Amino acid sequence: MDNSSVVIREVMLRDGLQNIPEFIPTEAKIKLFQLIVASGLRNIEITSFVSPKAIPQFQDSVQMAQSVLKMKPKGVEVSALIPNLRGAQIALESGMRKLGLVMSVSESHNINNVRRTTAESIDEVKRILELREKYPDLDMKIGLATVFGCPFEGKIKPEVTLHFIRQFYQLGFRGISMADTVGFGNPREVKEMSRLCVTEFPEVTFSIHLHNTRGLGLANSLAALESGIRIHDGAIGGLGGCPFAPGAKGNTSTEDLVFMFEEMGVSTGVKMDALMEASRYFQSVKKDVRYSSSILEVGVPVPKGAITKDGSEQKWNM
Amino acid sequence: MDNSSVVIREVMLRDGLQNIPEFIPTEAKIKLFQLIVASGLRNIEITSFVSPKAIPQFQDSVQMAQSVLKMKPKGVEVSALIPNLRGAQIALESGMRKLGLVMSVSESHNINNVRRTTAESIDEVKRILELREKYPDLDMKIGLATVFGCPFEGKIKPEVTLHFIRQFYQLGFRGISMADTVGFGNPREVKEMSRLCVTEFPEVTFSIHLHNTRGLGLANSLAALESGIRIHDGAIGGLGGCPFAPGAKGNTSTEDLVFMFEEMGVSTGVKMDALMEASRYFQSVKKDVRYSSSILEVGVPVPKGAITKDGSEQKWNM
Repeated sequence: MDNSSVVIREVMLRDGLQNIPEFIPTEAKIKLFQLIVASGLRNIEITSFVSPKAIPQFQDSVQMAQSVLKMKPKGVEVSALIPNLRGAQIALESGMRKLGLVMSVSESHNINNVRRTTAESIDEVKRILELREKYPDLDMKIGLATVFGCPFEGKIKPEVTLHFIRQFYQLGFRGISMADTVGFGNPREVKEMSRLCVTEFPEVTFSIHLHNTRGLGLANSLAALESGIRIHDGAIGGLGGCPFAPGAKGNTSTEDLVFMFEEMGVSTGVKMDALMEASRYFQSVKKDVRYSSSILEVGVPVPKGAITKDGSEQKWNM
Repeated sequence: MDNSSVVIREVMLRDGLQNIPEFIPTEAKIKLFQLIVASGLRNIEITSFVSPKAIPQFQDSVQMAQSVLKMKPKGVEVSALIPNLRGAQIALESGMRKLGLVMSVSESHNINNVRRTTAESIDEVKRILELREKYPDLDMKIGLATVFGCPFEGKIKPEVTLHFIRQFYQLGFRGISMADTVGFGNPREVKEMSRLCVTEFPEVTFSIHLHNTRGLGLANSLAALESGIRIHDGAIGGLGGCPFAPGAKGNTSTEDLVFMFEEMGVSTGVKMDALMEASRYFQSVKKDVRYSSSILEVGVPVPKGAITKDGSEQKWNM
């Protein structure tokens, strides 16, 4: 298994902004997108085609799609989230072709999140797939939420997730994301679930979407990589938050993911300096949110150069 | 290799307090010690026998040792840090027998930290070992600092660390700790270094001391466990701090370590509720320091119970 490189999918413009109630101006989002591209990130989720009533932050989804697609950023996979058929239609009319739909593998969470049973969600997916008659180049992926735990039902058995993956596989899906929506997962589970997926579905490209709610984002990402998952979601500044743990840390920070992987010799294609420019730009746009990125906070290690015995103050640290 | 359990060594009373300039009253430290014992932690570092001029926080080291040893907490390994021969003498006179001495494998850091070359540190260790004539039950361990990086010299080659371990092994040491003093390490390095140590020195009990400066504390702990390292340092509340990254996160949080390991089915022997009591007690003693423990902040997952389709508000989260 070649684990010498990973792709980090930047979800800041969608998941990172989702819980920020104050509308971020479209031009700031576009500027951030450009800085993200400049950093070397090549897989970017730009918005969610959700009703502006539900999440006003994404009222500019059409404009975002049109502006970004007009740029034709070379080699960049631009995607958007869709919650339902209506969202899919608007996204497609806006020119988007790479769409992701989320369904929770926990019945309770799916009902709470999208007011549908999982069976109803799957029916909706089938209706969306019919849009391929008009848009044959529709490239749709499935995001499975609460794979590693549900705020209502607790742990979800791997078999439940596999059962849904089998159904989506039958429907033709070859891109599936597993999400630790509320930060319940641990490295053993993530590694094992990933192994089960990769083993049973070698033709599917799996990705992983982790929240750092309990500090395990990086460890869980690493566990997924060890089982061969090569696409890892991250959000600049560790934004995102978990609606079931108000004030908690958000998505795994892209800066921290890049640092961890690059230090381990796992190539991300991301230039840290340029990435930090993107982070700092957004910090200048939005100050009063909780950032949770260690690298953004303390920077990468910069050795000061060797010293010799010089009578410097004793410190007794370990 | 049996990785079904770990021992978490609680270093809060030493490393956690080291960077807090305001003196914490001895009775609060004793109370915290008792709560730590009540939580199930069985390996506790209680103080540092450093000059009160260098670190006034530890001016009560003799009193701490005497008070704690008088309690004779059953099955608890009580240890203290010593910086030099003088500290060792005071510690032994205070009744302590389990002592740890720190030497940096980076020459620059050792000079900066204890104003000695590593050769001078090893000579000091030899002088301390002579105290065994008077105290035959002296149980001394070595802590190797900056194994995974030095703030002056950067990365340290594994061979440098192994070279020192060989010397300490020859001197009879069978307990050696590897420390990521400034939070430079990554899981690949930690796993590989641990593997090299365990392979070359099967008779040595290795432990690992990690700082979460760049968010990798948990991932690095896990990497160490995967190579068979079973003793992991943690500090309640993630206190500790790195003197070379002011304001950064400290030692890996004991709460987060316990959560990660227990969730993975790796037994720690620690009762989370009781541990949180210890954490909250110290928070009540000292409010104005930076805690960095995810579990202390958001708690362990508590599922709310399954729900059915009830028209609850749509959220569209992933």
